[in-house]
Amino acid sequence: MKIGIYGYGNLGRGVENAITRNADMELAAVFTRRDPASLKIATTNVPVVAAAELPQWTDRIDVLVLCGGSATDLPTMTPELAKRFHVVDSYDNHSKIPVHYANVDATAKESGHVALISCGWDPGMFSLNRVYAEAALPDGSNYTFWGRGVSQGHSDAIRRIEGVVDARQYTVPVPEALERVRSGENPQLTTRQKHKRECYVVAAEGADLEAIRQTIVTMPGYFADYDTTVEFITMEELRRNHSDLPHGGSVIRTGVTGINGEHHQCIEYSLRLDSNPEFTGSVLAAFCRAVDRMAKRGECGCKTVFDIAPVDVSPIPREELIAHML
Amino acid sequence: MKIGIYGYGNLGRGVENAITRNADMELAAVFTRRDPASLKIATTNVPVVAAAELPQWTDRIDVLVLCGGSATDLPTMTPELAKRFHVVDSYDNHSKIPVHYANVDATAKESGHVALISCGWDPGMFSLNRVYAEAALPDGSNYTFWGRGVSQGHSDAIRRIEGVVDARQYTVPVPEALERVRSGENPQLTTRQKHKRECYVVAAEGADLEAIRQTIVTMPGYFADYDTTVEFITMEELRRNHSDLPHGGSVIRTGVTGINGEHHQCIEYSLRLDSNPEFTGSVLAAFCRAVDRMAKRGECGCKTVFDIAPVDVSPIPREELIAHML
Repeated sequence: MKIGIYGYGNLGRGVENAITRNADMELAAVFTRRDPASLKIATTNVPVVAAAELPQWTDRIDVLVLCGGSATDLPTMTPELAKRFHVVDSYDNHSKIPVHYANVDATAKESGHVALISCGWDPGMFSLNRVYAEAALPDGSNYTFWGRGVSQGHSDAIRRIEGVVDARQYTVPVPEALERVRSGENPQLTTRQKHKRECYVVAAEGADLEAIRQTIVTMPGYFADYDTTVEFITMEELRRNHSDLPHGGSVIRTGVTGINGEHHQCIEYSLRLDSNPEFTGSVLAAFCRAVDRMAKRGECGCKTVFDIAPVDVSPIPREELIAHML
Repeated sequence: MKIGIYGYGNLGRGVENAITRNADMELAAVFTRRDPASLKIATTNVPVVAAAELPQWTDRIDVLVLCGGSATDLPTMTPELAKRFHVVDSYDNHSKIPVHYANVDATAKESGHVALISCGWDPGMFSLNRVYAEAALPDGSNYTFWGRGVSQGHSDAIRRIEGVVDARQYTVPVPEALERVRSGENPQLTTRQKHKRECYVVAAEGADLEAIRQTIVTMPGYFADYDTTVEFITMEELRRNHSDLPHGGSVIRTGVTGINGEHHQCIEYSLRLDSNPEFTGSVLAAFCRAVDRMAKRGECGCKTVFDIAPVDVSPIPREELIAHML
């Protein structure tokens, strides 16, 4: 299976690493909107190609992984590239997924390609687990907790504040909330009760630290609804202690069975990730396999993780899965 | 969707309860090899029918759930009934699944029915999670822990010992083993290191307790390879403290990503169940939905949970799943 990667940021590098760990995949090329000569990739003997040359690669790539951002790249990139390639993206703007789906489905169906959107871990593996768990326990509630982990969006929001040089924001689930959910108490939790936010900020020399702190903790949409702590650190501390991108979280469903609902049942799916982009890249690579198989069966249109049978994600032949993994 | 239940033990009652919690399902009939007049079921206005009359019910049942035992019932029951019905079973004799699969596939294909085998939580939800996790983290190890929960097979093995009136056996994961696995240490664990076994035994008056204890802890296949504790209790204590059938466990995959495998990643799927048969029944009911949909699409043959896309397990329309669960 020949995989192309479009975009060589953290996620693109994560996909590249995953390809080296899957014997049935090979990296065909990395495409970039930057000057290809300026890009040094980890894999040897694989070309870095200008994005403009993509149309000449249609016969040399089975699946193209789109590693652009959800805010401005993917909404146009995915429908456009689905005209020529079978593609996978990690579009994660949950509220706008139906619009993205419709746009991608239109061009993928017209051109006869398979386009898997919103793959990764949330959306992705967490979504799968929400659906399976709700089907298995119809009388119950779903809870999703994120972290402890670095939120890139929230870190960026802090960096845009005047006087801030750099910042790292951790999303942290509130332990008491997790405990209440796991106990089967089925609590109604506010935003503030579920997660807190820890910010590590490098301020410019002479900056008004109290003003920065106030701007952060009152920022609507990002921090105002949370208990937020702000700690000012040096650039050296940031580099030493906060250069990784760990993340994770849990999807929990608690529900009841029994004639009087007397039996509590709890399903929990948890991730503890040292590297968020590398795990996301790994999931994308696994689902490339499913996209390639669907494409070879002649399917087309926009797909989600919900549409894919587990057998298509696995490198192991079906007979072996039945014999050894069931 | 009209569901039939064949066999009204703990699992049959679990499926019956699940049907009441799924608005798109209704219980058509319960079939039994006992005298139907002797059976009182929880659902009102639903007939209890002699198993011999099953052939007359082909038009009145969409999916038949086979709640027989894996040792002697299902190996003949599932292939036989797949000649006339779309069926679901929970066959859990892992080492013999390929044989069962082949037998069921032959009759299901010949008669044009869908037959889902080995559904439930292990095999079932645990199997799904083993496959997804291995695909997402190709460089890693799978671990499955069971419990704390009642193992019916081990409880039965104790009951067959001379001088034993009744018994309950709990399978218990060893906390240190769980901790080592979760830490990403990737340990090689022996059977004894992973689980211990707790036995609560009611002995007959005057029975040789030390002989019973020795017979249990040295029993090959069941207890000899484990650290096993035996506690003698009264029948009253057994009824008061050990009448439920809790179970659960975890499927854990730890693996590495990164150029030098420097990032540890951990995926864990856990169940904490007050009632094992009711949860298993709930999973079977959810997958009845998928069987019915596959049947209506004209598919046939033996299927496993690996072959089923999550969208087919859910009662929620695909558009809504994409809009709200992705």
